[in-house]
Amino acid sequence: MTSETDRRYLAAAIRVGRAQLGRTWPNPAVGCLVVKDGVVVGMGATGQGGRPHGETVALDEAGDDAKGATAYVSLEPCNHHGKTGPCTLALISAGVARVVIALGDPDPRVSGAGVTRLREAGIEVLFEPFADLCATAAQAHRGHFTRLAKGRPHVTLKLALSVDGGIGLSGEGQVAITAPATNRLMHGLRSRMDAIAVGAVTYQTDAPQLTVRLSGLPDHSPQRVVFGGSEAPDGFIHLPGHDLDAHLQTLGERGFTSLLVEGGAKLARSLLQAHLVDDIVLIQGTPVLGPDAIRPFEVNPFAGGVPGFTVISRRQNGSDRILTFAPDRKA
Amino acid sequence: MTSETDRRYLAAAIRVGRAQLGRTWPNPAVGCLVVKDGVVVGMGATGQGGRPHGETVALDEAGDDAKGATAYVSLEPCNHHGKTGPCTLALISAGVARVVIALGDPDPRVSGAGVTRLREAGIEVLFEPFADLCATAAQAHRGHFTRLAKGRPHVTLKLALSVDGGIGLSGEGQVAITAPATNRLMHGLRSRMDAIAVGAVTYQTDAPQLTVRLSGLPDHSPQRVVFGGSEAPDGFIHLPGHDLDAHLQTLGERGFTSLLVEGGAKLARSLLQAHLVDDIVLIQGTPVLGPDAIRPFEVNPFAGGVPGFTVISRRQNGSDRILTFAPDRKA
Repeated sequence: MTSETDRRYLAAAIRVGRAQLGRTWPNPAVGCLVVKDGVVVGMGATGQGGRPHGETVALDEAGDDAKGATAYVSLEPCNHHGKTGPCTLALISAGVARVVIALGDPDPRVSGAGVTRLREAGIEVLFEPFADLCATAAQAHRGHFTRLAKGRPHVTLKLALSVDGGIGLSGEGQVAITAPATNRLMHGLRSRMDAIAVGAVTYQTDAPQLTVRLSGLPDHSPQRVVFGGSEAPDGFIHLPGHDLDAHLQTLGERGFTSLLVEGGAKLARSLLQAHLVDDIVLIQGTPVLGPDAIRPFEVNPFAGGVPGFTVISRRQNGSDRILTFAPDRKA
Repeated sequence: MTSETDRRYLAAAIRVGRAQLGRTWPNPAVGCLVVKDGVVVGMGATGQGGRPHGETVALDEAGDDAKGATAYVSLEPCNHHGKTGPCTLALISAGVARVVIALGDPDPRVSGAGVTRLREAGIEVLFEPFADLCATAAQAHRGHFTRLAKGRPHVTLKLALSVDGGIGLSGEGQVAITAPATNRLMHGLRSRMDAIAVGAVTYQTDAPQLTVRLSGLPDHSPQRVVFGGSEAPDGFIHLPGHDLDAHLQTLGERGFTSLLVEGGAKLARSLLQAHLVDDIVLIQGTPVLGPDAIRPFEVNPFAGGVPGFTVISRRQNGSDRILTFAPDRKA
């Protein structure tokens, strides 16, 4: 049996892990809280590059206080010897009495085995106790899930469009579409991604920096990627050719769990046609670009939606409107 | 690795299970599809009263075709001997080659053990492969999750209110607030619940039948419950006294995983104050009841929301508006 207190700490563990998104690939950004007698004695998230794991960080901080404590984790603790020892062993050695797990890990080396190992050691395990926190944790770990299921990163397509659905004017380079306040938000979105990509034409035309430039955020920019074209500068991964499926598999093999695609229109269309888009973020700015605009969508998505996708959130940000789309759920 | 085909069948298994909600308590309404060479050779959901399990039904239908097939299940198959043999054993005996599981089962007799047992038998197990279907399955099985975590059913509070937030007029009995089309929708909501409750005053004043009266739906009405008061007729569970926490624990012990509370104002207020409400469904009808109305909420929820809750869906149904609320997510 659980309590509202368990719920609160488990939600906090998910938040703590989520703050590390974009920095922990190829591993999931797991959060952990160690709580004893109503006091948080340890807190941790997966480190840069995937090590140490959140459980290790939190247990180290807790020290002897971990004995008899409850550990809250956003994802089932690993039970295999990778580059670090298994977290199940760390939890057992530290002497925790209870482990509360928001969500099982789909990694076949972990799923079920983590829970079983902890139980065999006499630890009380609460597995996925709260249905809504399952959903929250699955959302936070979606890059990890997508990479395991499909071998590629979770793909978010982000486009800033004029009121009439245009991305720019042919031959005029970058057109300012969104307000500065929205640009800041979008740098926040970038900062939680493992990698960020544009198509070759956009790269050559706009030469975007694709870095996170946002005061107050830790110094971190996702890996920059250019699809197609003949070259990309140092610091970019260049994937020439038009086989997007193969490109995404390559990124998955290199360990990237999430990819933000920022344009242009042709790359967006190709990814959508190939059913390689998992989420769409559209920003509707105030300009009207008229009939000569380059349009990534056949129909203006602010009027007719995006075929195969449903709006899951709408947000007004000053003069801009931000719409998030997820694939239609047949379920 | 999974495919879009896996995703489609797994989503279908969740839907097949969901259709049995309200009929399978004390067990979860699990759906299962058995698929071989692109053909659905077996399909099943948990039966009335919780038996047989969905896996058994689907495997029986598949017969010899289950050999080498893939089984899709909405929840981790059980691995313990209850009143039926474990589903893991049924899957192993039937000779399935792969099992795709939407979500782990939080039941401590199952979690992890189901997956481990299947793997030990040489079956390829894909556990929670799709993050969004984890969320869909958790929503479908939320009654099972809540009963395991808290020992009580998942509580949905449903109220029909006037534009100005009134539930009725003192001393005037039942006031018609919603349109017939909405009443039909609400009978659908009832039909997916294990139990349905009202407070004693509502029972005495309105004598609601609390049955499902909807052509085209299978003949099924949830268990009717009256909280408080001195009596209730045959066929009702009567829980006298004001300890709502204890009442809900009693219903949980009897096996109910979901409860729809339909009023009145006093019961709604008491449940909200005790933090015993998991979801709220509010219907805003067209009448205006004025200053003498009985109001379950201090502030009109259509103007000021419900403290501690967030609107997660809005739906217009003819002249009525239907709002669904979930507890604020701090995560």
